[in-house]
Amino acid sequence: MCLKKTEAVSPIPAIIEVAAVLTMQDALRALTDYWSRHGCTLIQPYNSEVGAGTLNPATVLRVLGPEPWRVAYVEPSVRPDDARYGENPNRLQTHTQFQVILKPDPGDPQELYLGSLAALGIDLHAHDVRFVEDNWASPALGAWGLGWEVWLDGLEITQFTYFQQAGGITLDPVPVEITYGIERIMMALQRVDHFKEIRYATGVSYGEIFGQAEYEMSRYYLDEASTDANGRLFEEYAAEARRMLDARLPVPAHNYVLKCSHTFNVLDSRGVVSTTERAAAFKRMRGLARDVAHLWVERRAELGHPLGVVGPPAPAELPVSTAVPGTPATLVFEIGTEELPAGDVTRTAATVRDAVARKLAATRLGHGGIRTYATPRRVVTIVEQVQPREPDSEQTVRGPRVSVAYADDGEPTKAAVGFARGRQVDVAKLRRIDVDGVAHVGVVRPDPGRDAVAVLSELLGQVVAELRADKNMRWNDPKLSFVRPLRWLLALLGDVPVPLAVSALAGGTTTRVLRNAAEPSVEVPSADGYLELLAGEGIVLDPAERRTRIVRAAQRLARDVGGVVDVEGESALIDEITNLVEEPTPIRGGFAEEYLALPSEILMTVMRKHQRYLPVRAADGTLMPYFITVANGSCDQEVVGTGNEAVLRARYEDALFFWRADLDVSPDRFRAALDKLSFAENLGSMADRADRIAAVAQDLGALPMVFMTEAERRTLTRAAALAKFDLASHMVVELTSLAGTMAREYALRAGEPEPVAQALHEMEQPRSAGGQLPRSTPGALLALADRLDLLVGMFGIGSGPTGRSDPFGLRRAASGLVSILRDHTALRSMDVSACLAVAAEHLRARAVDVPATTLDEIREFVTRRYEQQLLDSGQDHRYVAAVLPLAGSPARADETLAELHKRAKAPDFAELVAALLRVRRIVPAGTAAGYDASRLVEPCELSLHQVLGEVRTALGEQPTRLRDFVDTAAALVGPVNTFFDEVLVMDEDADRRATRLGLLAHIRDLSAGVLDWSALGAMPAAGK
Amino acid sequence: MCLKKTEAVSPIPAIIEVAAVLTMQDALRALTDYWSRHGCTLIQPYNSEVGAGTLNPATVLRVLGPEPWRVAYVEPSVRPDDARYGENPNRLQTHTQFQVILKPDPGDPQELYLGSLAALGIDLHAHDVRFVEDNWASPALGAWGLGWEVWLDGLEITQFTYFQQAGGITLDPVPVEITYGIERIMMALQRVDHFKEIRYATGVSYGEIFGQAEYEMSRYYLDEASTDANGRLFEEYAAEARRMLDARLPVPAHNYVLKCSHTFNVLDSRGVVSTTERAAAFKRMRGLARDVAHLWVERRAELGHPLGVVGPPAPAELPVSTAVPGTPATLVFEIGTEELPAGDVTRTAATVRDAVARKLAATRLGHGGIRTYATPRRVVTIVEQVQPREPDSEQTVRGPRVSVAYADDGEPTKAAVGFARGRQVDVAKLRRIDVDGVAHVGVVRPDPGRDAVAVLSELLGQVVAELRADKNMRWNDPKLSFVRPLRWLLALLGDVPVPLAVSALAGGTTTRVLRNAAEPSVEVPSADGYLELLAGEGIVLDPAERRTRIVRAAQRLARDVGGVVDVEGESALIDEITNLVEEPTPIRGGFAEEYLALPSEILMTVMRKHQRYLPVRAADGTLMPYFITVANGSCDQEVVGTGNEAVLRARYEDALFFWRADLDVSPDRFRAALDKLSFAENLGSMADRADRIAAVAQDLGALPMVFMTEAERRTLTRAAALAKFDLASHMVVELTSLAGTMAREYALRAGEPEPVAQALHEMEQPRSAGGQLPRSTPGALLALADRLDLLVGMFGIGSGPTGRSDPFGLRRAASGLVSILRDHTALRSMDVSACLAVAAEHLRARAVDVPATTLDEIREFVTRRYEQQLLDSGQDHRYVAAVLPLAGSPARADETLAELHKRAKAPDFAELVAALLRVRRIVPAGTAAGYDASRLVEPCELSLHQVLGEVRTALGEQPTRLRDFVDTAAALVGPVNTFFDEVLVMDEDADRRATRLGLLAHIRDLSAGVLDWSALGAMPAAGK
Repeated sequence: MCLKKTEAVSPIPAIIEVAAVLTMQDALRALTDYWSRHGCTLIQPYNSEVGAGTLNPATVLRVLGPEPWRVAYVEPSVRPDDARYGENPNRLQTHTQFQVILKPDPGDPQELYLGSLAALGIDLHAHDVRFVEDNWASPALGAWGLGWEVWLDGLEITQFTYFQQAGGITLDPVPVEITYGIERIMMALQRVDHFKEIRYATGVSYGEIFGQAEYEMSRYYLDEASTDANGRLFEEYAAEARRMLDARLPVPAHNYVLKCSHTFNVLDSRGVVSTTERAAAFKRMRGLARDVAHLWVERRAELGHPLGVVGPPAPAELPVSTAVPGTPATLVFEIGTEELPAGDVTRTAATVRDAVARKLAATRLGHGGIRTYATPRRVVTIVEQVQPREPDSEQTVRGPRVSVAYADDGEPTKAAVGFARGRQVDVAKLRRIDVDGVAHVGVVRPDPGRDAVAVLSELLGQVVAELRADKNMRWNDPKLSFVRPLRWLLALLGDVPVPLAVSALAGGTTTRVLRNAAEPSVEVPSADGYLELLAGEGIVLDPAERRTRIVRAAQRLARDVGGVVDVEGESALIDEITNLVEEPTPIRGGFAEEYLALPSEILMTVMRKHQRYLPVRAADGTLMPYFITVANGSCDQEVVGTGNEAVLRARYEDALFFWRADLDVSPDRFRAALDKLSFAENLGSMADRADRIAAVAQDLGALPMVFMTEAERRTLTRAAALAKFDLASHMVVELTSLAGTMAREYALRAGEPEPVAQALHEMEQPRSAGGQLPRSTPGALLALADRLDLLVGMFGIGSGPTGRSDPFGLRRAASGLVSILRDHTALRSMDVSACLAVAAEHLRARAVDVPATTLDEIREFVTRRYEQQLLDSGQDHRYVAAVLPLAGSPARADETLAELHKRAKAPDFAELVAALLRVRRIVPAGTAAGYDASRLVEPCELSLHQVLGEVRTALGEQPTRLRDFVDTAAALVGPVNTFFDEVLVMDEDADRRATRLGLLAHIRDLSAGVLDWSALGAMPAAGK
Repeated sequence: MCLKKTEAVSPIPAIIEVAAVLTMQDALRALTDYWSRHGCTLIQPYNSEVGAGTLNPATVLRVLGPEPWRVAYVEPSVRPDDARYGENPNRLQTHTQFQVILKPDPGDPQELYLGSLAALGIDLHAHDVRFVEDNWASPALGAWGLGWEVWLDGLEITQFTYFQQAGGITLDPVPVEITYGIERIMMALQRVDHFKEIRYATGVSYGEIFGQAEYEMSRYYLDEASTDANGRLFEEYAAEARRMLDARLPVPAHNYVLKCSHTFNVLDSRGVVSTTERAAAFKRMRGLARDVAHLWVERRAELGHPLGVVGPPAPAELPVSTAVPGTPATLVFEIGTEELPAGDVTRTAATVRDAVARKLAATRLGHGGIRTYATPRRVVTIVEQVQPREPDSEQTVRGPRVSVAYADDGEPTKAAVGFARGRQVDVAKLRRIDVDGVAHVGVVRPDPGRDAVAVLSELLGQVVAELRADKNMRWNDPKLSFVRPLRWLLALLGDVPVPLAVSALAGGTTTRVLRNAAEPSVEVPSADGYLELLAGEGIVLDPAERRTRIVRAAQRLARDVGGVVDVEGESALIDEITNLVEEPTPIRGGFAEEYLALPSEILMTVMRKHQRYLPVRAADGTLMPYFITVANGSCDQEVVGTGNEAVLRARYEDALFFWRADLDVSPDRFRAALDKLSFAENLGSMADRADRIAAVAQDLGALPMVFMTEAERRTLTRAAALAKFDLASHMVVELTSLAGTMAREYALRAGEPEPVAQALHEMEQPRSAGGQLPRSTPGALLALADRLDLLVGMFGIGSGPTGRSDPFGLRRAASGLVSILRDHTALRSMDVSACLAVAAEHLRARAVDVPATTLDEIREFVTRRYEQQLLDSGQDHRYVAAVLPLAGSPARADETLAELHKRAKAPDFAELVAALLRVRRIVPAGTAAGYDASRLVEPCELSLHQVLGEVRTALGEQPTRLRDFVDTAAALVGPVNTFFDEVLVMDEDADRRATRLGLLAHIRDLSAGVLDWSALGAMPAAGK
């Protein structure tokens, strides 16, 4: 197989070919021709339904193993879930992917990719093309990779991934996967608003060719497919796949895995897959996929790797450099990367700065200030005033003491001779060295300073070699690993190049500027002109300056239409944008006013989260129909603005469509429709679940410790009756993250009272760890009920989490439960067991019997979440352990923990702890509290007996709070200590011993429910 | 949809692009580009397994209805049956088709197609490209079409079909389907011998990319696929298809039909589909496919035909011509066609000649001789000495007789007035006309002769419009219909063009010559230079001359290698070849001597039937390793010879592979392996069937009327034990027509005695109606047993033929049975019923109980076959009816029929028949033969009684043969006639009547078994 290597960096041609209208057919041919020219074998789509080009064995199997593989193909990708009868402008049950695999990573895949866009006639000087972090993982395939979605004027047109694993197998060499979404690209290039209007070929539209199939296959996937038949097909396929694995035939096995997958998707689009069935199906498919992958690898090895084996790239050679600056000079050190995720830009800058500083400090090289700047494509360290050399020094090695080094006659002893021989010096050359006032013999050697270039060459190389991020990947380098590939290194000390060679990466004096620059690679003559050179190319190296520019331009653009950007409120987003571009180019776009009718959450979610647009607001804070997008580098602002507007319009049009359709349906009707959504096997439909949540919430609300006003009770009743209704709405089906949000919106518009709407909104809270918690009591009760039903239901049917696998989000549910109980004042006295019992009771009505042991298991599971929350918040693990026995009521445990913090530093508390631990240590397990008071004779015994009596009376029968206990039980410290000092508890006389132990056991029991005292045993003594 | 129309005839560019090596990837792109340039929409292969590109809805559905459609696509076509583990050089379980649909027929699809070959870099001046008749029908799709396979130097590289029906629906407009077999083309162009060696892309071979899948999918299809699972899948798919039809969704329905079809193919390749299951599955799929097609047509109409509607082409306009030759001139009339099937060339010439002659005779146009010549591409009629005009004439119209036309006063009567008015003449202008001596009034009009051009213009137009073949097709003409499209007309009378306009086809003065000529269209200035012009282009118009040239050149080429061509023996093949070419160019090729080890039947079958090569023989008649192929027109003989040699080599290599593999297996082992081949549900495996055949043959051989020597009996026993063994051999699995042939070859080589081998060979005879019959008695008995078991078995399980459907070939079996019984001397006294009873007895042992009524039904079925044989051989239907009651023993019926022929002309036979019919007519049905002789009193009664007694004695008890009966019963004629003359049979006296009828009934019964006399009732009396 011949893998043509193209030049690493080449200028992008403006437009290879200008066509009046590039039809979709032309586009596919242009891509095919382009990738064929770049060494890709062209193959046909897979001849069984696949959900994505990745599933074609030409990707998912060929990426495995050591063979090279360059392939390009079209893949009609079937997604039953996206079926919309051909009505939705952007959703199709079958869309067209163009798939490219480059294995190994050729070193310049981004540049190759951009060349393909140019081949499509996309003018890269006019458009804003961006690589936006998007990592990919398919648990069903045991596969993941890091990379980007590529944006064309805000539109996602391509997935670009460095494949790291497939079928659970780490990929070596690393392949690059490029997946184009052809319909999207065509809609953008042809500027049409509906996929049916795409000009497919000369004189024929996409709709004319595929419209009928789109409609009819939608009918099949959404309405007509026999769920029984497809269920049986799934089983047949899975069994056949397994049989083929047993027969050691990965190709037919994979074929059946694909059929399984498609059939599952059909069942799913028919809405009959319950949560548990989904998990079971995924587990099964994942198992098959992994086995196929392993078998494929074995088979290729058996076949002797017909396509050959990719060797690792040769390590870079370190050039010999003898040049050294004569005077102190500035060091510029640039690490060139492919687009870093926004979150990694700042972090990497700090990491590199620390590493350089730390490593410099370990040398004798003199230097001035160290600054680091980062953009998505480079991390630049500047060190001022680097001295030409390290000063010379000496190295001293200590030997034996003089007293043993020389015999009385002054002759060196064996010790001295041995030491000298070990250091390879003549024993006569040993010198006398004082160490802490003791005389030793020793060796002193001159340690000449190295020149700065040598020092830096080594040091900077280490910095690169050791660079790591939280989530690392591999590319075509044999050793390096980072969040994205490192592609070039530049190091200049003044005008002297610092030689670098790290793994396969060689340093140089060339930097890369914006990709669409006339000359994307630029030679840097000297460190001193570097910043100006970058600035001249438009690159704003300093993030602070980028941020300022963004804010200033955005405000100006907003002002032009009479609006403002909420710089404070959008701070996190602005930070992100700052790290997405090198040359920020804010551009204003607008959208139709009618979309403002949509709830602002929807508008904002799309703008901020999906598009990274800054919303423009009027003076009163309301949204205006404008946004600011920040392009990277120079472009045709008209073109880019229009493109981004089209993207937003498509998204809002979708949302508006759902919104309007949903408003036609009352919350009660949605609620009734929940019976068509499966929840989990044996747990019925989503309507059944909502019924249970309602009942559980009502029962919890009726508990005596819950105070609610009459109005709150009415709110709870109504909200419970509507619980989860919005899950049946189009909007939530599309954007699940809007569950609750849409419930509030739809409820309000249907005339429900504000508190009811609010409760429905709050019942989905918290959405994540640390997320907003319900404020109203009805909302909190519903939120609790929701999580209780999920936990008890899933554990009850044996679908609790195992190992790292938690497909139903039970950890999150338990954590949310804990958070609510800790937070909500009105519910602080509830305890977990009681709550679980209520949920279990309502499940029993559905014939799901949850045994007590399972409830114990759940309680333990909830306790672990509480423990984790405490540890995550930085609590001392000993304190955490101390209060954990109270986790049944997290609020009470919190209170105890707070008290513990208050008391911990006080000496009397330490004494109390010590006394109690003394008691606990001596009393054997199983000793009952109780003694015959008449047997007490010693004064210390009597004294303890008396004080104990007083303390017990003071504490009463209720579970004791720490504060009360400490205040009261402090009285026991003296008598206890005296008791231990004066009597031998373990007296030889059995009666005496029993009496004393019985007395102490009382003290033990008295302290038992307060906290776990033994966890405090290892605490440092107070005052130390 | 824009269908670009290209110029009808354009010269073919030599080579568009010369590539060092055209890879398969390049070839697919070249085809894609070419057809895209010619207005085809490019789509993707279907995303479910299909057996051929035709099944893709882009063909099988889009060809339906009035919408235009031009499409091209690649289709990986899955044929489980062709799985060979990647070992066979030419067979793949998945091969690559390139499919083109041109709808409507653009008028020049062949020229477009040849352009695509040029685009592939095929030099059409060097290669021999031929269109060889190949009609296509897929009963499973309810589809058929007429067209060709295209040969490149003898290699079939493309199927070219004018689609006529699909889903049982007649297609209008007619689409052209072009299907390229890409692997074959690549192997030829790249000159490689194994598909794995095809250079797929630069540096990658086909085997490197697809080898593993080819192996593993072969394993699945041949060895591993679960037949149970696939059986269930078939049912699920069929049910889902039916459900989608009910939901009126043809697209998903078709999808499931395709899945059905593929699954069926999987089951079939696993060898578990019995004959009856196959028929049932096909019937089911056919029903589904037809319903899909009809529904699709309805749905497109409902959608308003999104792609538009193709209108019929405009009729041609008849130019006005005033030119007329001044003197008698030669007419040349050329009908230009696309390649006619060889069988139609001669036939069409005769048809056209007859039509022209007949039509000319109906005019007054004087002319000389009429000659017609035909080649595959033209039918030329030459009429000498056509006069410039018809002579003038008069037209006479006869009116009423003079006697009624005028009153006595000489005034015209109403009759005369009315006649005159009707003829629009003044009554005074009526003239007197004598008709057969009777005077009438009448009108005489001048009938001026037309000029020859006008006469011919009309006449030739009619000839074309009325031209029909046995099997006709339609193309882009709204009215014409013929065996292949008519594409041009040329008519010249001397140098005057005869204007022609037939439907959309206009005449002209341009002819077309060989397609790879420098100028494929040539202007013909005058009829007189026409023959020379064609000859100058190399075209040999006269078939006799073509034949002579072929024979002469072939003999010369054979002589050069010391061989001969058996011109006598290959006469039919030479006739066929003569009609396959316009410019015969015989070329000699050779093959490796090692292939001569193969049985000559195999060698010959491949050369003659598959390749139309003339075998070269040594003087002693044995085959030599040479062949003569006859190319059409000038070409590079080296290239064409080499190409044809490669084709033959591939075919022989295949055969040799099977041959060698088979020789490793003994006949007994093959026989044992028959238990793995299913035969039919309830009838067990092929081994069970062979067991029954053996038993039936032995039982028949034991019947008393069968005489066999001891040696023959031993032969029968051994041959029966091996019956059908070769069905398990590779060779017969591949080439079923060699069943029996291979049995003989393998048996001989395994050391079986020659008679055993011969019997095994003969048991498959006759292979078709009129085919060779078994000569040996053991062979004949086995052949009978084979057919008996099939008939009784199939009827027995209720799978007899219905209507026109006869999936198990029972008609052929019954006909063969009859032929053997008629032919084989030793078996001539066997009768059908007895044979059937034996077969039924052995089926009963397999628990298949065949009731007597079914056996009657089979006998009746066999009788019909006999009747058909007689009628087909031209027997008078009355004679046939007469002997049909004897069909239970066809040999006896034959004998009777022969006797009938001998006797029929004799007067005494006619008298006998008349007498017997007289008897039969008068005796009521149900009258018993028998009378009280003492009641006979009249002399004629007594005389008849006496003669009857003598005749009865003479004939004896045996069933009477016609000859004996006629000779003997002739004596009855006189007495019978006298009897009828002298007594009244139906006498009033009941006793007398009964006595006379009883006497006559005896005569009736005496004649009854001889033949059906009543059938002879309508015979013309002897001598008339």
